[in-house]
Amino acid sequence: MAFPLVDQLDIVIPTIRSGAILRWTLAPSPRAGAFGSIRNLEFLEEWRPFFQPYHLIIIQDGDPTRKIDIPAGFDYEIYNRNDIERILGDKAWAISFKDSACRCFGFMVSKKKYIFTIDDDCFVAKDPQGKPINVLEQHIKNLLSPSTPFFFNTLYDPYREGTDFVRGYPFSLREGVPTATSHGLWLNIPDYDAPTQMVKPKERNTRFVDSVMTIPKGTLYPMCGMNLAFDRELIGPGMYFGLMGEGQPIGRYDDMWAGWCTKVICDHMGVGCKTGLPYVWHSKASNPFVNLRKEYKGIFWQEEIIPFFQNLTLSKTSTTVEECYLELAEKVRKGLGHIDPYFTKLADGMIAWIEGWRMLNPAKSA
Amino acid sequence: MAFPLVDQLDIVIPTIRSGAILRWTLAPSPRAGAFGSIRNLEFLEEWRPFFQPYHLIIIQDGDPTRKIDIPAGFDYEIYNRNDIERILGDKAWAISFKDSACRCFGFMVSKKKYIFTIDDDCFVAKDPQGKPINVLEQHIKNLLSPSTPFFFNTLYDPYREGTDFVRGYPFSLREGVPTATSHGLWLNIPDYDAPTQMVKPKERNTRFVDSVMTIPKGTLYPMCGMNLAFDRELIGPGMYFGLMGEGQPIGRYDDMWAGWCTKVICDHMGVGCKTGLPYVWHSKASNPFVNLRKEYKGIFWQEEIIPFFQNLTLSKTSTTVEECYLELAEKVRKGLGHIDPYFTKLADGMIAWIEGWRMLNPAKSA
Repeated sequence: MAFPLVDQLDIVIPTIRSGAILRWTLAPSPRAGAFGSIRNLEFLEEWRPFFQPYHLIIIQDGDPTRKIDIPAGFDYEIYNRNDIERILGDKAWAISFKDSACRCFGFMVSKKKYIFTIDDDCFVAKDPQGKPINVLEQHIKNLLSPSTPFFFNTLYDPYREGTDFVRGYPFSLREGVPTATSHGLWLNIPDYDAPTQMVKPKERNTRFVDSVMTIPKGTLYPMCGMNLAFDRELIGPGMYFGLMGEGQPIGRYDDMWAGWCTKVICDHMGVGCKTGLPYVWHSKASNPFVNLRKEYKGIFWQEEIIPFFQNLTLSKTSTTVEECYLELAEKVRKGLGHIDPYFTKLADGMIAWIEGWRMLNPAKSA
Repeated sequence: MAFPLVDQLDIVIPTIRSGAILRWTLAPSPRAGAFGSIRNLEFLEEWRPFFQPYHLIIIQDGDPTRKIDIPAGFDYEIYNRNDIERILGDKAWAISFKDSACRCFGFMVSKKKYIFTIDDDCFVAKDPQGKPINVLEQHIKNLLSPSTPFFFNTLYDPYREGTDFVRGYPFSLREGVPTATSHGLWLNIPDYDAPTQMVKPKERNTRFVDSVMTIPKGTLYPMCGMNLAFDRELIGPGMYFGLMGEGQPIGRYDDMWAGWCTKVICDHMGVGCKTGLPYVWHSKASNPFVNLRKEYKGIFWQEEIIPFFQNLTLSKTSTTVEECYLELAEKVRKGLGHIDPYFTKLADGMIAWIEGWRMLNPAKSA
């Protein structure tokens, strides 16, 4: 087996141990037990054939005194809350606590060009022929081939073997643009919100859709952080997962926030976001009652936030992702602050995030 | 087998007999023989289990004295050039001659709510389980379920069984909007332009992508007329296939033209365009040398036409498809006339088309 980009890609994994305890504590429903068991990172055993040569960055999201067991033979670094405080100092508050949003600290400390991030309840999926899917290989294919955000290709990814641009596709657009983000999907448990989980508790995703496509320019999408890869150089400073978890009024919008911000910035910078293959096997539905509590403000706030992002234009003077992100922070402060004081704090968090990014990535920022 | 909407849908088929003769005459290459044989509508035999209860509208695109053989047992009406002249009088010039673009006359004379149009070199495809695909049934599903043009759903059509809107999809957008167009795809011979056909003469589409999706608002796509269904009430007057074939400087852009126009109008009217399933089996590649001759002006013109459509805004006072189309005709005259006098004629053709439409569809226009 080949291991593409093995020296250029980090795998970022948030551990959700304390989160699991928190969920169990706060949701003493009959179902909670199913979600509250404390796991270690044994999910890596199943990924070993695919991940072992890669470097892992593990972010421990709760009690720093807990010891996380990591299967032997993996090359990793691990950061807990104390490490984040030590490294980021007065910017550390911008990294969420007791929430998988803390994974973005891993994006910041990585020194590699590419990131793949995955949740620890995601396992190896199989294609319709029964073959285990090499998730990294497909993400890397997606990231290394261009995107086509300016015109839709009806046969999907035109760079894939056996496919091309169809009749009527402008030739001037066939070179495409660099790909910043590769958003993979999930078989088994679909990524539903709490109300949909409650209404359709038994729904499972069994449909393997054999395609990758570029999300068109000007179109927003719900980016899920479960199975996601991106190019740090092209979009890294935009991949902040916001303020979630302990002490914050919402949760489960960390990846959505990053998705809205990165899509708007990618559109501005002329780079692409892809979605589709590869699939992972998502094993467990999180507790819908807990999810509802975390999500409910987001569910109505997003009705205002999404039009805000849809109508947002970044200025021509913002020519780097960091500049775009700082401009976006001010727009969030002005444009969303009226919804809740949270958005003012979030705007401050966005600025602190960029300050932290610059501190840890000085060469790129210069 | 159920035959949904059997009283509300017409199947429109252009015959390309004279077109085939023309191609054979003008392209005396060694390969031309393969494309020049005169076929009748025997392709209907394979479709009989699916199409027989539906009404067919056949448009004969060349020499009106030729007799077309139609397999027994189908319910049909047929129009040749003489019929078009008789029915449309001084507007008949707007219907292309010796080109499958003439199919849009069938859209105009239909009295039904829905149209399905298919080329006579398209046969029944099979799904990955080997089951023949009921193309009409899938198009009807697409047309009768809503579209979601305002936000991308990463699990594709949210109305399909086993699927829903994913986390982060705004609840206010989950009702969707009515679907105007259902664009189906092709297995075997992909719909490539002449240069791609020449470069990849052996490429075949073998990938069955099991999805239907809405083309997002603001995004154009290359709409192919081979396997297409639409709602006449929602978009019919926009489905003009332009001036192609004999006496015109281009060909093979008839469906592209209709695709650009209908997408812009659908976006303005707040209705949706879907693409994906169902597949047909496209049996024969047309002659790439002949195609190049027909297409080459389109290939460079589209580099200006597509940005024109991408930047086009229809005025709020255009509240019906007919009004939108007339406004579009004037924008084409002003915005594209500098490319070639053809576009001035096309703008006149667009107006003549609407006049013809109103003549044949007086109640809807009132």
